Amino acid sequence: MKARIHITLKEGVLDPQGKAIQLALGDLGFGGVDDVRQGKYIEVDLAETDASKAKDALDDMCKKLLSNTVIENYTIDLDE
Amino acid sequence: MKARIHITLKEGVLDPQGKAIQLALGDLGFGGVDDVRQGKYIEVDLAETDASKAKDALDDMCKKLLSNTVIENYTIDLDE
Repeated sequence: MKARIHITLKEGVLDPQGKAIQLALGDLGFGGVDDVRQGKYIEVDLAETDASKAKDALDDMCKKLLSNTVIENYTIDLDE
Repeated sequence: MKARIHITLKEGVLDPQGKAIQLALGDLGFGGVDDVRQGKYIEVDLAETDASKAKDALDDMCKKLLSNTVIENYTIDLDE
Protein backbone atom coordinates (compact mmCIF):
# COMPACT_ATOMS: atom_id res chain seq x y z
CA MET A 1 0.00 0.00 0.00
CA LYS A 2 1.36 3.37 -1.04
CA ALA A 3 0.89 6.62 0.85
CA ARG A 4 1.63 10.20 -0.05
CA ILE A 5 2.36 12.56 2.83
CA HIS A 6 2.46 16.35 2.58
CA ILE A 7 4.10 18.31 5.36
CA THR A 8 3.58 22.06 5.30
CA LEU A 9 4.36 24.90 7.65
CA LYS A 10 1.37 26.14 9.63
CA GLU A 11 -0.26 29.41 8.65
CA GLY A 12 1.68 32.30 10.16
CA VAL A 13 4.94 30.41 10.55
CA LEU A 14 7.74 32.24 8.72
CA ASP A 15 9.04 30.30 5.68
CA PRO A 16 12.53 31.60 4.81
CA GLN A 17 13.04 28.89 2.18
CA GLY A 18 9.84 29.89 0.40
CA LYS A 19 10.79 33.55 0.63
CA ALA A 20 14.22 32.78 -0.88
CA ILE A 21 12.54 31.00 -3.80
CA GLN A 22 10.18 33.93 -4.30
CA LEU A 23 13.10 36.40 -4.42
CA ALA A 24 15.11 34.16 -6.75
CA LEU A 25 12.13 33.89 -9.12
CA GLY A 26 11.89 37.70 -9.10
CA ASP A 27 15.61 37.97 -9.90
CA LEU A 28 15.09 35.58 -12.84
CA GLY A 29 12.43 37.90 -14.23
CA PHE A 30 9.30 36.05 -13.14
CA GLY A 31 6.87 38.81 -12.14
CA GLY A 32 3.60 38.49 -10.26
CA VAL A 33 4.72 35.83 -7.80
CA ASP A 34 2.74 36.85 -4.72
CA ASP A 35 3.83 34.12 -2.34
CA VAL A 36 5.80 30.87 -2.21
CA ARG A 37 5.64 28.26 0.55
CA GLN A 38 7.86 25.20 0.55
CA GLY A 39 6.88 21.96 2.18
CA LYS A 40 7.93 18.33 2.13
CA TYR A 41 6.48 15.49 0.12
CA ILE A 42 7.11 11.92 1.21
CA GLU A 43 6.05 8.71 -0.53
CA VAL A 44 5.89 5.63 1.69
CA ASP A 45 5.45 2.03 0.55
CA LEU A 46 3.92 -0.09 3.28
CA ALA A 47 3.59 -3.87 3.50
CA GLU A 48 0.32 -3.32 5.43
CA THR A 49 -2.76 -4.00 3.30
CA ASP A 50 -5.45 -2.83 5.72
CA ALA A 51 -6.16 0.84 4.96
CA SER A 52 -7.27 1.73 8.47
CA LYS A 53 -4.22 0.16 10.12
CA ALA A 54 -1.95 1.77 7.53
CA LYS A 55 -3.51 5.18 8.21
CA ASP A 56 -2.97 4.76 11.96
CA ALA A 57 0.67 3.74 11.47
CA LEU A 58 1.30 6.66 9.11
CA ASP A 59 -0.32 9.07 11.55
CA ASP A 60 2.01 7.80 14.24
CA MET A 61 5.03 8.13 11.92
CA CYS A 62 4.12 11.74 11.16
CA LYS A 63 3.77 12.58 14.85
CA LYS A 64 6.93 10.79 15.98
CA LEU A 65 9.38 11.46 13.16
CA LEU A 66 8.24 13.03 9.93
CA SER A 67 6.70 16.31 11.05
CA ASN A 68 7.20 18.84 13.80
CA THR A 69 3.60 19.29 14.90
CA VAL A 70 4.39 22.52 16.75
CA ILE A 71 4.97 24.37 13.48
CA GLU A 72 3.89 21.92 10.76
CA ASN A 73 0.68 20.35 9.48
CA TYR A 74 0.58 17.03 7.68
CA THR A 75 -1.89 15.31 5.38
CA ILE A 76 -1.91 11.62 4.47
CA ASP A 77 -3.33 10.27 1.20
CA LEU A 78 -3.57 6.53 0.77
CA ASP A 79 -3.53 4.93 -2.69
CA GLU A 80 -5.86 1.98 -2.29
CA MET B 1 -4.15 31.75 -8.95
CA LYS B 2 -2.60 29.10 -6.75
CA ALA B 3 -0.37 26.27 -7.95
CA ARG B 4 0.94 23.17 -6.23
CA ILE B 5 4.23 21.78 -7.53
CA HIS B 6 5.63 18.35 -6.68
CA ILE B 7 9.28 17.67 -7.37
CA THR B 8 10.38 14.07 -7.08
CA LEU B 9 13.56 12.17 -7.86
CA LYS B 10 13.39 10.18 -11.08
CA GLU B 11 13.00 6.42 -10.91
CA GLY B 12 16.38 4.81 -10.32
CA VAL B 13 17.99 7.88 -8.78
CA LEU B 14 19.34 7.07 -5.33
CA ASP B 15 17.45 8.86 -2.54
CA PRO B 16 19.66 8.93 0.59
CA GLN B 17 17.19 11.17 2.44
CA GLY B 18 14.36 8.72 1.85
CA LYS B 19 16.59 5.83 2.88
CA ALA B 20 17.52 7.64 6.11
CA ILE B 21 13.82 8.13 6.91
CA GLN B 22 13.16 4.44 6.22
CA LEU B 23 15.95 3.37 8.57
CA ALA B 24 14.83 5.83 11.26
CA LEU B 25 11.26 4.49 11.04
CA GLY B 26 12.64 0.97 11.47
CA ASP B 27 14.63 2.09 14.52
CA LEU B 28 11.45 3.56 16.00
CA GLY B 29 9.74 0.20 15.66
CA PHE B 30 7.67 0.78 12.55
CA GLY B 31 7.88 -2.49 10.63
CA GLY B 32 6.82 -3.21 7.08
CA VAL B 33 8.09 0.01 5.55
CA ASP B 34 9.22 -1.21 2.13
CA ASP B 35 10.38 2.07 0.63
CA VAL B 36 10.45 5.81 1.32
CA ARG B 37 11.11 8.53 -1.23
CA GLN B 38 11.32 12.18 -0.28
CA GLY B 39 10.45 14.99 -2.62
CA LYS B 40 9.67 18.68 -2.46
CA TYR B 41 6.29 20.36 -2.37
CA ILE B 42 5.98 24.00 -3.33
CA GLU B 43 2.89 26.21 -3.24
CA VAL B 44 3.02 29.28 -5.47
CA ASP B 45 0.56 32.18 -5.47
CA LEU B 46 0.51 33.90 -8.84
CA ALA B 47 -1.06 37.23 -9.80
CA GLU B 48 -1.71 35.75 -13.29
CA THR B 49 -5.37 34.81 -13.81
CA ASP B 50 -5.07 33.06 -17.19
CA ALA B 51 -4.56 29.33 -16.51
CA SER B 52 -2.64 28.64 -19.70
CA LYS B 53 -0.23 31.54 -19.17
CA ALA B 54 0.21 30.57 -15.51
CA LYS B 55 1.00 26.98 -16.50
CA ASP B 56 3.61 28.16 -19.00
CA ALA B 57 5.24 30.43 -16.43
CA LEU B 58 5.29 27.67 -13.81
CA ASP B 59 6.77 25.23 -16.30
CA ASP B 60 9.52 27.75 -16.98
CA MET B 61 10.10 28.27 -13.24
CA CYS B 62 10.47 24.53 -12.71
CA LYS B 63 12.96 24.21 -15.55
CA LYS B 64 15.02 27.26 -14.61
CA LEU B 65 15.05 27.19 -10.82
CA LEU B 66 12.84 24.81 -8.90
CA SER B 67 13.88 21.41 -10.22
CA ASN B 68 16.99 19.73 -11.54
CA THR B 69 15.54 18.09 -14.63
CA VAL B 70 18.53 15.76 -14.99
CA ILE B 71 17.52 13.82 -11.89
CA GLU B 72 14.09 15.17 -10.95
CA ASN B 73 10.55 15.11 -12.34
CA TYR B 74 8.00 17.80 -11.58
CA THR B 75 4.22 18.01 -11.75
CA ILE B 76 2.16 21.20 -11.67
CA ASP B 77 -1.43 21.34 -10.37
CA LEU B 78 -3.35 24.56 -10.81
CA ASP B 79 -6.21 25.49 -8.47
CA GLU B 80 -8.61 27.30 -10.78
